[in-house]
Amino acid sequence: MSISNRVDIVSVPLGERSYDILIGAGILQVVGALIEKHDLPKQTVIITDRKVASLYLSVVETSLRRSGCSVFTITIPPGEKEKSLQRAGRVYTQLLRRGISRRSTIIALGGGVVGDLAGFIAATYQRGVSFVQIPTTLLSQVDSSVGGKTGINHHLGKNMIGAFYQPAFVLSDVATLKTLPPRELVCGLGEVVKYGIILDEEFFCFTQRNLARALRSQHTVLRAMVKACCTMKAFVVSRDERESGLRTILNFGHTVGHALEKAGHFHSLKHGEAVLWGMLAETLAAQLLGMIREEDVRRICDLISSVPMPPLPQEAFRSLAAAMRLDKKAVEGKIICILPTRIGGVTPPTAVEESILENVLQQMRHYEL
Amino acid sequence: MSISNRVDIVSVPLGERSYDILIGAGILQVVGALIEKHDLPKQTVIITDRKVASLYLSVVETSLRRSGCSVFTITIPPGEKEKSLQRAGRVYTQLLRRGISRRSTIIALGGGVVGDLAGFIAATYQRGVSFVQIPTTLLSQVDSSVGGKTGINHHLGKNMIGAFYQPAFVLSDVATLKTLPPRELVCGLGEVVKYGIILDEEFFCFTQRNLARALRSQHTVLRAMVKACCTMKAFVVSRDERESGLRTILNFGHTVGHALEKAGHFHSLKHGEAVLWGMLAETLAAQLLGMIREEDVRRICDLISSVPMPPLPQEAFRSLAAAMRLDKKAVEGKIICILPTRIGGVTPPTAVEESILENVLQQMRHYEL
Repeated sequence: MSISNRVDIVSVPLGERSYDILIGAGILQVVGALIEKHDLPKQTVIITDRKVASLYLSVVETSLRRSGCSVFTITIPPGEKEKSLQRAGRVYTQLLRRGISRRSTIIALGGGVVGDLAGFIAATYQRGVSFVQIPTTLLSQVDSSVGGKTGINHHLGKNMIGAFYQPAFVLSDVATLKTLPPRELVCGLGEVVKYGIILDEEFFCFTQRNLARALRSQHTVLRAMVKACCTMKAFVVSRDERESGLRTILNFGHTVGHALEKAGHFHSLKHGEAVLWGMLAETLAAQLLGMIREEDVRRICDLISSVPMPPLPQEAFRSLAAAMRLDKKAVEGKIICILPTRIGGVTPPTAVEESILENVLQQMRHYEL
Repeated sequence: MSISNRVDIVSVPLGERSYDILIGAGILQVVGALIEKHDLPKQTVIITDRKVASLYLSVVETSLRRSGCSVFTITIPPGEKEKSLQRAGRVYTQLLRRGISRRSTIIALGGGVVGDLAGFIAATYQRGVSFVQIPTTLLSQVDSSVGGKTGINHHLGKNMIGAFYQPAFVLSDVATLKTLPPRELVCGLGEVVKYGIILDEEFFCFTQRNLARALRSQHTVLRAMVKACCTMKAFVVSRDERESGLRTILNFGHTVGHALEKAGHFHSLKHGEAVLWGMLAETLAAQLLGMIREEDVRRICDLISSVPMPPLPQEAFRSLAAAMRLDKKAVEGKIICILPTRIGGVTPPTAVEESILENVLQQMRHYEL
């Protein structure tokens, strides 16, 4: 089967850890051929969640079996709380009971939770096995499946345990997005908006023009967005795989975003929604600090406001500062943010006074979307 | 302070992950200077066990503080059972409660258990922080501190969870070996004997001649052994960091050894003792298969027999084959061993019939050391 006519390929150049992201519509069934093409172990393990399994597991299993793979599927409940050391421990047990060897391929079929958990398992089971990502949410297609971050949560913070571990390839099928709940689409659009703000004004304008079509899951728009975001993220992570420099710009919106998620105990707001609120907060902080033109602030706030978001939960305001200090992006007690200076440009990590962020949060308390 | 006159340096060339092993007697107090020299984060965390802490913690803490480091020490109970996901979870909590950031340095002060656990924590805390090894047992100085293997145990098998993660440097102080219990010295000598068998007949002869002196903890002999073993292991892992080829020769004695440890529930036999018995078993298997001269078998058995080892526990014979099949070195149900073909040479991983190993184990049941 010729794959090349139907897919866009974004390469992530990371030396010996380089890999390709394949993007198309209706391409799930090529996974078996890709396993063969990449000469990956044919003892395969699919890690997925119940929701995704009911929709897409059978086409993936069939494709793998047709290519001569053995398939063992581990289905977990959906939800962020599965990104835990406890769940990881249970998955290790399932793999060992099944006799899965170090010459195996773990395939993440699902959104960010599945990808982060499966990636962490792939990085640490028997000191690392082959890994493939099949992201089925917009958020994971534009963001978490690119760059090799894997991780699980700790009750004291999100993604506190993890590893950098690159997949052999990523297969992004935008046709899977048609079954995505609207809130999940919004989460992905949060990251799409982010890429325009941090790196590319032209793409920011594309997103403005096409937001309504994206919200209706139009394939061509989503495919263009996935391709553009992956290209930008590949550019960034290939220059800074382990987040010691440039890669930190991807954290725009995430300092406040993570803290909001944490203050809501990971259920009031989804990650992408929290990042949308976080970008708003960090843009307002940049405004308070006089780092960005009013006009750009207005355009950013307008675009974010045109994404249908749930209101900011009141409990999010409690102990928010403490949550921000515990974030990985905290350095020696100061709260480190990425701040926009224009549409298409952000600062390096910048220490922001707690009082500025508290001020912004008071503003947001009364923010009407 | 000039370090160079008092230490031997073995370089482990692994590209951007290259590092040095510093070997000497009475050199613990240079750790702070080395942290500075390597420009590592000065927020340091020492992970050690109670026994080692009572002997060497204060000199290490003092050295770090003198170099301007902050020091947070986590002391765990001694013993293999601490290499668990549960213990790792508790350590993550301690690090988070203390506010340890991703810009920190984790220092393993102790033997293989501490090194493997601390290395796994360093590899996975906040997706990886800087790591330093100070091995204080002969086994960890000659083996586990070289090559970046980190790992924790699962109740279904040893080291089933882990990562390859290289330290910034290793500081091996052979003066710490004078406080080592005799059984621990024996464990290290098991690996020392292994290096002679797999790679270097001349070193095999050196070990024969100097075994008694080593058993009396004579510094010059131990230092020579540590240096020779590290040099050989560095040679091997630099050619095969992730154990896809040459590095597998280091597993000589380990297929049967791991299974013996597991069958004894990790307490009847220590790792190095199990490897000694494992090397004996795998040498006898090579003999049964006609792969090695009788003369070489005799010399190998003689050297192993001159190391004071505890008897083989009877419970080890139960479910040994099953344990071997679950080992990471199992491929598609066959039992894979490294077999010696002469003193100084071994096979690549070789599938061995279970009946051969059962036969060997029956022989060993009546083996008199």
